[in-house]
Amino acid sequence: QFAEGVPALPLETPGFSSNDWAFFIEGMYPDHRLGLFQEIPLELRGDVLAVTNDDVRRRLIEQLSTNELYNLAESTSSEHLVEVLGMMPSHVLLRAIKRLDSDEQELVHKALSYTDRKIGRYVSRAVLTVTPEATAAMARTALKQQQVPEYTDRLLLVDDKGIFKGSVDLEILQSAPARQALSELSDLDEKHMLLADQDYGEAALDMKSSGFAMMPVVNEQHELLGRITIREALELAVDYYENQLLAQGGMNDEDLFAPVKVSVARRTVWLGINLITALAASWVIGLFELALSKIVALAVLMPVVASMGGIAGSQTLTLTIRGLATGQINNANLTLLAHKEVRIGLVNGLIWALIIGVVVSWWFGNPGLSFVIAIAIWINVLAAACAGILVPVILDRMKIDPALAGSVVLTTVTDVVGFFAFLGTATLLLI
Amino acid sequence: QFAEGVPALPLETPGFSSNDWAFFIEGMYPDHRLGLFQEIPLELRGDVLAVTNDDVRRRLIEQLSTNELYNLAESTSSEHLVEVLGMMPSHVLLRAIKRLDSDEQELVHKALSYTDRKIGRYVSRAVLTVTPEATAAMARTALKQQQVPEYTDRLLLVDDKGIFKGSVDLEILQSAPARQALSELSDLDEKHMLLADQDYGEAALDMKSSGFAMMPVVNEQHELLGRITIREALELAVDYYENQLLAQGGMNDEDLFAPVKVSVARRTVWLGINLITALAASWVIGLFELALSKIVALAVLMPVVASMGGIAGSQTLTLTIRGLATGQINNANLTLLAHKEVRIGLVNGLIWALIIGVVVSWWFGNPGLSFVIAIAIWINVLAAACAGILVPVILDRMKIDPALAGSVVLTTVTDVVGFFAFLGTATLLLI
Repeated sequence: QFAEGVPALPLETPGFSSNDWAFFIEGMYPDHRLGLFQEIPLELRGDVLAVTNDDVRRRLIEQLSTNELYNLAESTSSEHLVEVLGMMPSHVLLRAIKRLDSDEQELVHKALSYTDRKIGRYVSRAVLTVTPEATAAMARTALKQQQVPEYTDRLLLVDDKGIFKGSVDLEILQSAPARQALSELSDLDEKHMLLADQDYGEAALDMKSSGFAMMPVVNEQHELLGRITIREALELAVDYYENQLLAQGGMNDEDLFAPVKVSVARRTVWLGINLITALAASWVIGLFELALSKIVALAVLMPVVASMGGIAGSQTLTLTIRGLATGQINNANLTLLAHKEVRIGLVNGLIWALIIGVVVSWWFGNPGLSFVIAIAIWINVLAAACAGILVPVILDRMKIDPALAGSVVLTTVTDVVGFFAFLGTATLLLI
Repeated sequence: QFAEGVPALPLETPGFSSNDWAFFIEGMYPDHRLGLFQEIPLELRGDVLAVTNDDVRRRLIEQLSTNELYNLAESTSSEHLVEVLGMMPSHVLLRAIKRLDSDEQELVHKALSYTDRKIGRYVSRAVLTVTPEATAAMARTALKQQQVPEYTDRLLLVDDKGIFKGSVDLEILQSAPARQALSELSDLDEKHMLLADQDYGEAALDMKSSGFAMMPVVNEQHELLGRITIREALELAVDYYENQLLAQGGMNDEDLFAPVKVSVARRTVWLGINLITALAASWVIGLFELALSKIVALAVLMPVVASMGGIAGSQTLTLTIRGLATGQINNANLTLLAHKEVRIGLVNGLIWALIIGVVVSWWFGNPGLSFVIAIAIWINVLAAACAGILVPVILDRMKIDPALAGSVVLTTVTDVVGFFAFLGTATLLLI
């Protein structure tokens, strides 16, 4: 069953977690995945699907029969229900939802109204809620009678309209006077809840900063949708960062073994965007055909000018993108940061202008050319520092993810400025 | 006190977690940091320092007096002790260690023997251990008498020599017969523990896959060093990924407001490495001076060939680096993956060779030139796909982090192959 090129499955699959299964399925050639999937214990299958990457999940769901999909929906834990249901064809989806109990039906309806970039989609319902009018003694009694879900470090207060009214830390609850109302013990700090509309990566980072084991998730009307646990935050953080790393390389979270035609279609878009920027650089070079035809060394050295600017710019760009993503760069300190980066550009530009000037004078024995390339390097490294700050800040204000588009815009700037500075100065001074 | 360009501190600092404080300190201009640091409640200061980035922590520790450092060491929670102590000057370090209680002293000695890339350094000692000979009843009694540390979902069994002998899930423990020995309830699965020598990012991912709230950490002799909780795993995962993102941009985890001379010194190294690769590309171009002097359009179009190869290669590179980092690419499926990527390269190369051929023929009206650039694009996109697989695999076997060095090596390959294919074919066919 496991053909050539497929890793042998370890023997102790009984101890496998849903993450372990997902890991093996993703590393397999697509033809063998369905076979392995059907060897997973029934009660785990939904959770396994929920943690595989989007591509793999979509393709497996396409391969399952309608009946298998219904069983899947019923056996998936409520924590992962939405991720599995969200990819089912609509006719299966509606009937699968009807089979759920009414509490879960409500959650699924709400969660599916958020896109998979929003934390609202990942909410789970395994949460202990109490009315704010209850006393500490009542809450303590209720706690003893219930199964406390894991990662529960607080009780959530919800009024009869479903509005979130704050939370009570379990340790504080244990030591509170019996007759004290829960509403007096609670806090309703904005920092202690997540908004369903938040980006899921940002929500995972909020969870990290909070120090809590769980956080309630509310919508704009402050209705409680459910909670996110620290376990889900860890999964979402890893997913968020893997996508950022892939986006920086012009990729998305694709199946390692996606069919060639699917991969080609996706990647070719990025190549096309890049071609436009490359043609812009070519157009600038084309303005200086005269200089190029007289001094061939200009053509030889062009890549050096462009690439030094590109590297210097991407250093600043990377720092700025991370600062914007974590929220550490704001209007107050942006100017300070820009000043610092420009000064680094001035110094680094000068250092490498001098070094490259010396290398070129030794290589070509032409002091004029050395001077021209030194000027161009300095200008380009400085321009790169400015672009490294401005490009991501502007993209961010335009609501375009700088991690996705930043580097292609930056490269256009450093190519165009670099070629213009180098060939322009050469035309002025050497022709 | 908070000068121009410094974000105003929100009023509710009493509710601040150590992560909140660290966030504000990192976003401030260095001159103002010490002032804010000294407004942090004493008992939080050590933990705040532990979660700020390395640069900021090092500089703050340099600014504190010896007495302040001793106080810091005493007030830091044992979870974060090593991160704070690890940056203290050695004379302070040794005396600070002596003031700790003997259990903490031992932990610090062991943890400091690991570099900050290893999970052993991040171990905490807040862990419940029992001898494997104890019975379930004894363990249940002991549990009731002790403060159970947060994120404890299991008891760790340790023999009198300190060797880890497995762990018992608390739920299993609660329902076990009173006289059953713990050793019979435990499992000693490799997947349920971390090795102190593991990379900390890999350990955080193991934690995510495990589904546990904590994992024991052992050394090569299977001595128990302590544990990592899911909270620490979340912090380490974020730190690991932020560093990966910075490394891809040729940066490290530097202070946003590091002094200009420190930043220049660090970044200039990367610019120097890049210069060598740019000069290699220039050298290849220099081999074809004759062709360039006769056909200026070659110089105009050179960047297009290089950059299409660069983008295609970085797509494959990104996928390969992520697959290697998560362990999903292994010897068994590497060949399959390489086949797939080469086929994508063949198809995408052909598509863009044809498109660029048409664009060039429209721009320059020279069918020979169109043919030459189409051939060069095809060759380079194909070479890029091969390099995108081979470069990270080879770097990985050489124990060099492909996230750090991969893209500079790949760019060298695509530049050199691109210029060689383009100018070489032109020399053969057009001169």
